[in-house]
Amino acid sequence: MEISELGEFGLIKHLTKDMKPKNESTLTGVGDDCAVLQYPEGNRTLVTTDMLMEGIHFDLQYTPMKHLGYKSAMVNLSDVYAMNGTPRQLVVSIALGKRFKVEDLEDFYEGLRMACESHNVDLVGGDTTSSMTGLAISITCLGEARPEDVVLRSGAKETDLICVSGNLGAAYMGLQLLEREKAIFNEQMKEAQKRGQKVVEPAQPDFAGREYLLERILKPEARRDIIERLAEAGIRPTSMMDISDGLSSELMHICEQSHTGCRVYEERIPLDYQTAAAAEEFNLNVTTCALNGGEDYELLFTVPLTMNDVVSKIEDVRVIGYITAPTEGCKLICRDGAEFELKAQGWNPLKNS
Amino acid sequence: MEISELGEFGLIKHLTKDMKPKNESTLTGVGDDCAVLQYPEGNRTLVTTDMLMEGIHFDLQYTPMKHLGYKSAMVNLSDVYAMNGTPRQLVVSIALGKRFKVEDLEDFYEGLRMACESHNVDLVGGDTTSSMTGLAISITCLGEARPEDVVLRSGAKETDLICVSGNLGAAYMGLQLLEREKAIFNEQMKEAQKRGQKVVEPAQPDFAGREYLLERILKPEARRDIIERLAEAGIRPTSMMDISDGLSSELMHICEQSHTGCRVYEERIPLDYQTAAAAEEFNLNVTTCALNGGEDYELLFTVPLTMNDVVSKIEDVRVIGYITAPTEGCKLICRDGAEFELKAQGWNPLKNS
Repeated sequence: MEISELGEFGLIKHLTKDMKPKNESTLTGVGDDCAVLQYPEGNRTLVTTDMLMEGIHFDLQYTPMKHLGYKSAMVNLSDVYAMNGTPRQLVVSIALGKRFKVEDLEDFYEGLRMACESHNVDLVGGDTTSSMTGLAISITCLGEARPEDVVLRSGAKETDLICVSGNLGAAYMGLQLLEREKAIFNEQMKEAQKRGQKVVEPAQPDFAGREYLLERILKPEARRDIIERLAEAGIRPTSMMDISDGLSSELMHICEQSHTGCRVYEERIPLDYQTAAAAEEFNLNVTTCALNGGEDYELLFTVPLTMNDVVSKIEDVRVIGYITAPTEGCKLICRDGAEFELKAQGWNPLKNS
Repeated sequence: MEISELGEFGLIKHLTKDMKPKNESTLTGVGDDCAVLQYPEGNRTLVTTDMLMEGIHFDLQYTPMKHLGYKSAMVNLSDVYAMNGTPRQLVVSIALGKRFKVEDLEDFYEGLRMACESHNVDLVGGDTTSSMTGLAISITCLGEARPEDVVLRSGAKETDLICVSGNLGAAYMGLQLLEREKAIFNEQMKEAQKRGQKVVEPAQPDFAGREYLLERILKPEARRDIIERLAEAGIRPTSMMDISDGLSSELMHICEQSHTGCRVYEERIPLDYQTAAAAEEFNLNVTTCALNGGEDYELLFTVPLTMNDVVSKIEDVRVIGYITAPTEGCKLICRDGAEFELKAQGWNPLKNS
C-alpha cells in the first residue's frame, strides 16, 4: 500500500493504534502537540537521543525493517540503562523516501513494539515525514532513576575495578560477514547482467555456526539484566557507560571524565568462540576487534575494589582491569606482558574515509 | 575547517563549550549517556519532537544555516507553548554530508543558541553524525507545566470561541517569493552556462517591502508572549495547538479530538497587508493561503464564550469563529455568507506530488 493513500495523520494512527501506555508516568501519548508525563516525586528524568542514517548506520540490503525498528529502540534503551536508570518513554521520528510502502513501516513499528514491550516502554510520540533520498531515524528515550541511583561516567576512582558485561567484538564480526556476503551477491548480479542473464537462484549465504554474530549486529539487546543483577548484589557502579563505539574509546571517555588512567588485561577481555573463529578466518586480530569494533551495547562500569568478590560472582560480568592515577595513562597489558597505549580508534561516523 | 579534523567528540565539545545550563531542572547536560533532569514535584513533563529534512522542509539555497538552527528550535518550542507549558530542555541530532564545514555547524548552533537564550531553554544533548546525502535535523524538546495548566487539543466545547494569534499565510507567501527568486537565479545561471559565460553579478532579488514575509518563513517566533498574556488575563484555553500545517488542518484536528464542529468567518481571519499584496501579485486567493499555507507557528485555541470580552482585549489575538455540535461539520462562512466545508489541504509531506 502506498503511504500517500493514508497521509501523515492516517499513517500515524494506523501504526500506533494498538499501543496502549503501560507506564503510570505516561499520562498522554501520541496525538497532541506534546506527550504529557508525570514522574514520581523526587525522581530524576533521563534523556538520550540517537540518530540512524541509511548508508551510514545501516544497510537495507541486509537489514530487515523489523530488525531496524528493534535496534533503533535498543540503542536508546541501552543509554538509559548505562545511567543505571529505567527507560519509560520513546519518541520516534522517521523520514523516508517514495520507495517505501506502508508495509515497510508496519515492519519497522513491529520491531519497535517488540523492543518496547520487552522493556515496558511506551511509544508516546514522534514525527513521520518524507526524505528526498535515504531513510533517517531519530529516537529520543526518556527514563527515570532515583537520585541516589544515577551513575555518571565521571565517578571512577583509583583502584576501582573495571568490568564489562557479555562479550565484545561479535557485532563487528557479524558486520564483516554481512558485508562479505553482500559483495559476493552484488558481484554475481553484475556478472549475470553483463551476460544478459537473470539470476534465478542467487547463491544463498551459508551462515551456519555464525548465527550469534549476525544476531549481535542485527538484533542487539540492551542489558537491563545486568542492571538488575547489580542492584540485587547491592552494587552501585562508580561510573558506567554502554559500549557503542568500542571498548577503547569508551574506556578513554570514562578515564577522561573521571580524571584517571586505567590498566586493562588483554587476556581478561571476554570473547565469544564464534568471534574468535571469524576473526581468524578474516585474518583479523581478535583483540583489536574487541577493542575497536563497536556496536556491542554491553555495559562498561567500575566498582570499588572492595566489591571484587561480589562482582566476580555476577553472571555474565567480567573484571578486565583497574583504574589508576591519571599520570599512568590508559594502557592495555598484552598476554606477553607488553604494554600498549589505548587509542580511540572506535567507529567515527565523521571521519574522512 | 573540515569536520573530520575535530571528530565527533571534539566537534560536540567545540559547539557546546559556551552553553551553561540556566534552568534549575537541568542537573547534567551534554557529555554522558543521558542528560539528567529534575522537575519540581507534581509538575507534568511535556515532550515533543520534530524532524527537518533537506529538500523537504528547507532549501539550503536560500536558507542560511543560522536561520535553520533558529527555526529548528522554534518549531519545537512552539509545540510546548501549544500545551500551555514552558520549554526547558532541547536535544539536537544532526546528520550532515561531507560538503559541510565546521563553520556551517557553528552557524547552525549559533541559531540554536539564540533561540534557546531568548526562551531560557538548555541544550542538554544530542547526536552529531554523518549523512550520505542531505542534511537531516531532529530536535526533541522537553518542557513542564503545572497539572492544572496543561491544555490538550481535545477540550473544546460547543459555543466556545475560536481564537488565533498574529496573522496567517505570511510564511507561505514568503516561501513563494523565495521559490520564485530561486527559479529566476537558476535560470540565469543555466543561460550563462549555455553561452559559456560566467555570471559575475547575478541579479539581486528585490525583497523591499516584503521583509516581513521572508522573516515569517525563515525566522518564525514561538508565541510565548501569547501564553503569558492569556495567563495574565486569567484565561486557560479549553483546547489549543500551534498552526504548523495550516488553519484548516489544525481546526479539523481540534474538532475531531474534541468531537465538535466549528464555524469560522473568512472576514475574521487575520492577514498582514504584505500577505494580501503578495497573494494578489501571485494571483492566489489570500484566504486559501491563510487556511492551507502552514508554517505560521501561531497559536489556535478555544475559550469559553463567557471570556469574549476578556479575550477580545488581548493584543494580537483575534476571535475568528465558534465551536458547534459535531453534526454541524467544520465550515467556513465566506464574506458573501456562503458556507464551505473546511478541508485539510494543509502541507502533507507524505503526499504523492
